[in-house]
Amino acid sequence: MTDDRSDVAAATTREAVAAVAAASATWAAGPYADRARVIRAIADALDSAADDLITTAREETRLPEARLAGELKRTTFQLRLFADVAEDGAFLDVRIDRPDADWPMGAPRPDLRRMLVPIGPVLVFAASNFPFAFSVAGGDTAAALAAGNAVLVKAHSGHPRLSDATAAVISSAARSAGAPDDLVRVIHGTENGVAALRDPAIKAASFTGSIAGGRALFDIANARPEPIPFYGELGSVNPAFVAPTAASRRADEIAQGYLGSITGSRGQLCTKPGLLLVPAESPVLATLRDAEVPDSAPLLNDRIQQGFVEGLTSMSEHHAVSVLRGGSDSIADPPGTTLLFTTVDEVLNDPDALITEVFGPAGLVVSYEDPEKLPELARVLDGQLTATIVADEDAAGDIALARTLVPILTEKAGRILWNQWPTGVSVTHAQQHGGPYPATTAPTTTAVGTASITRFLRPVSFQNFPGALLPDALRDGNPLGFPQQIDG
Amino acid sequence: MTDDRSDVAAATTREAVAAVAAASATWAAGPYADRARVIRAIADALDSAADDLITTAREETRLPEARLAGELKRTTFQLRLFADVAEDGAFLDVRIDRPDADWPMGAPRPDLRRMLVPIGPVLVFAASNFPFAFSVAGGDTAAALAAGNAVLVKAHSGHPRLSDATAAVISSAARSAGAPDDLVRVIHGTENGVAALRDPAIKAASFTGSIAGGRALFDIANARPEPIPFYGELGSVNPAFVAPTAASRRADEIAQGYLGSITGSRGQLCTKPGLLLVPAESPVLATLRDAEVPDSAPLLNDRIQQGFVEGLTSMSEHHAVSVLRGGSDSIADPPGTTLLFTTVDEVLNDPDALITEVFGPAGLVVSYEDPEKLPELARVLDGQLTATIVADEDAAGDIALARTLVPILTEKAGRILWNQWPTGVSVTHAQQHGGPYPATTAPTTTAVGTASITRFLRPVSFQNFPGALLPDALRDGNPLGFPQQIDG
Repeated sequence: MTDDRSDVAAATTREAVAAVAAASATWAAGPYADRARVIRAIADALDSAADDLITTAREETRLPEARLAGELKRTTFQLRLFADVAEDGAFLDVRIDRPDADWPMGAPRPDLRRMLVPIGPVLVFAASNFPFAFSVAGGDTAAALAAGNAVLVKAHSGHPRLSDATAAVISSAARSAGAPDDLVRVIHGTENGVAALRDPAIKAASFTGSIAGGRALFDIANARPEPIPFYGELGSVNPAFVAPTAASRRADEIAQGYLGSITGSRGQLCTKPGLLLVPAESPVLATLRDAEVPDSAPLLNDRIQQGFVEGLTSMSEHHAVSVLRGGSDSIADPPGTTLLFTTVDEVLNDPDALITEVFGPAGLVVSYEDPEKLPELARVLDGQLTATIVADEDAAGDIALARTLVPILTEKAGRILWNQWPTGVSVTHAQQHGGPYPATTAPTTTAVGTASITRFLRPVSFQNFPGALLPDALRDGNPLGFPQQIDG
Repeated sequence: MTDDRSDVAAATTREAVAAVAAASATWAAGPYADRARVIRAIADALDSAADDLITTAREETRLPEARLAGELKRTTFQLRLFADVAEDGAFLDVRIDRPDADWPMGAPRPDLRRMLVPIGPVLVFAASNFPFAFSVAGGDTAAALAAGNAVLVKAHSGHPRLSDATAAVISSAARSAGAPDDLVRVIHGTENGVAALRDPAIKAASFTGSIAGGRALFDIANARPEPIPFYGELGSVNPAFVAPTAASRRADEIAQGYLGSITGSRGQLCTKPGLLLVPAESPVLATLRDAEVPDSAPLLNDRIQQGFVEGLTSMSEHHAVSVLRGGSDSIADPPGTTLLFTTVDEVLNDPDALITEVFGPAGLVVSYEDPEKLPELARVLDGQLTATIVADEDAAGDIALARTLVPILTEKAGRILWNQWPTGVSVTHAQQHGGPYPATTAPTTTAVGTASITRFLRPVSFQNFPGALLPDALRDGNPLGFPQQIDG
């Protein structure tokens, strides 16, 4: 890029940030019911535009139609769920402490009323692998809008036209529903994304992608004169531990389930279980090797495909690793399902090389002789989005193993599964999609589910305020009917 | 420090971190009722040791006995309040989503159960100005313990003996109550604090102090291979806006209230209102100049006193600033009450120089002719812990001004007051002690009040788990009787 073009890009980004900041102030000040109505109008418009959007998405992402249609459905469901959240008002966490002259801390308690308010304009870095659900109209946008913030999306380079098309549908629907202009805007290009992240008007940012990219942006967000919260969802290996009795009783079901989980969406999911622990000489291994899997097919884009080939080649060249399924023919173009194989002792000898995410339809199968090695391996894990236990409830040995694993995995992962596979992240109230670093840069939050709205809110207390000047949610008589916690 | 002594210090810090980490695991696994019982035992023991602790505090901090006694009372009240929080269980934010085959996102909803779990060992950097309430047994320690974490406190250099004495009382009480050893440990020295902050076993840190010191530690926390949440409470000017009618009707009361707020604790409070906006030629000015104030007296320690003299001297040398009260005699040893004076236009011309925190009994009084300048000034503020409006509810002009100010101040500050002064931060459910940077490094959280516990917790979801392996708080039948949000 020449300097001239850089200048133009910088000016364009500044303009976009300023426009979104103006929209954010208007949006924050509006009634909660309007927020809900606008978000539902956006969902309806996206559903109406499904055919065109899915056609564009197919051209840009190599994802099949059914997968894209399902993802768009998930996306509009998610928007409507956040509309419900905005309208319900519990997300404001309203707390009212009435004056108390006898408050036992030694001084009278004043009238204090606390609620969460919008944090301000949010910058969302879209992901490659969910062109709808983690992109322009995705979960971060839904949560930020419901919280009362306008959104600037840095589009992913894997689907630029779809990003613009989605933004156009949103803008038109939002405008018709009476929302401010520029409620959701899109910018393109890494340089512009970084410029936006450094702009003082941006008050929070979210990201879904690689460890290297996410950490670089996290560092930029923290190096600002005014650092801002940066909610990065980076990398996760998602270990799955198969206990001995389950492995012997349900070998086929387990192997098929695992293969389904690592090949769905061609393995390009942040919750793909990339590490499978199974008993040595278990019949699970034979099914993993021989069962039918989807045909080889190209990955989302050339960069991801290259990363898959390089990561898997490197791991397959490790002296302790052999090939269980696939190999040079599947670590290729187009990639097929590949399973590498090693033992738990080898992983414990070299965890940095062997516990590593490879994005695509592949996994490292790790055999163990002694179940005591599983907690040992769990202890050396970095932070994870998920950890899975496959075990039989009526087998004393499996249960004893699980009782040892669960507290260790609770320290390591945001979601722990029992006899289910971690891909397919349901959007619900109790979902947790997050975890200690490097799973995320913000282990106290979630990136999926209704609780994710708190990332885009900050608390404010009003002390001794006259009712007429209080926000409606904090007034006596509760005019909005939102939940109010009074005197604890 | 020679290398040998550095090595010894590093080894001591490593040992302390390891001991606290071991205690944290045991503490996290124990029943909530035990947590509450131990925390109450600690509070009782501190109350019993009050005489000795206060004597030591007086020797080290130059704070008067009544202030220290009040602060200790606040501290033990705070511990007991957090014991209640630990026992009540609402802080776990339990959410249970039962399986739903018809969940409208296009795939069945699994059984998902989410709660908050302890984040892990917490490092607390103690403050100088509250040797009890923001130190070894202070609010961060209370919140971290109630959340289920052991605590390593980096003692403030202003009261090292009191820090050790407080830790000894805590340890003895905790041990007698059956808590693990090393539940709360103390280290000394900046170098050791930094080493602890870099230790991988530490999972969160909190800090109360200066912008320079807090930012340096924030940067270290974020530069770790595994970055951790850093909850820093740094600096705040705490502007107070006096509306015209209030100023003319209640001049004496306002001036006396302001003087009380900036001289209490000798002005060494993070919520001291350092900037006062008053109408030009208001009678408030005469009272500010002439009313009685406490005698000159030394500040907490020589470093703080030197900072006061330097900061105030620098501001008083600004071409647009004159002296309203005090001057070279009060900007001295020991410091007396000092009020500098300028106009709102001058502040708007040079906000960086004039809107700046000076820790100690001083304030900048700013006159305005045109109330329209107040929102203009509010807009240039950095993030604040508090902002205060003094106005008369039955005066249309004051109310109109307030209606303009409140939304601007809501963006800038964590707590907004009406006709009360911001010093004296009540420990309650609805308290908010925080704000955008540089007030804090974590604008989505609070450092005071029961909501501060969430800083030391992280969410975990359990999917499809058998009841016997679930944490008690998530089980069907609700054996603990904690609040459970079911299906939203």
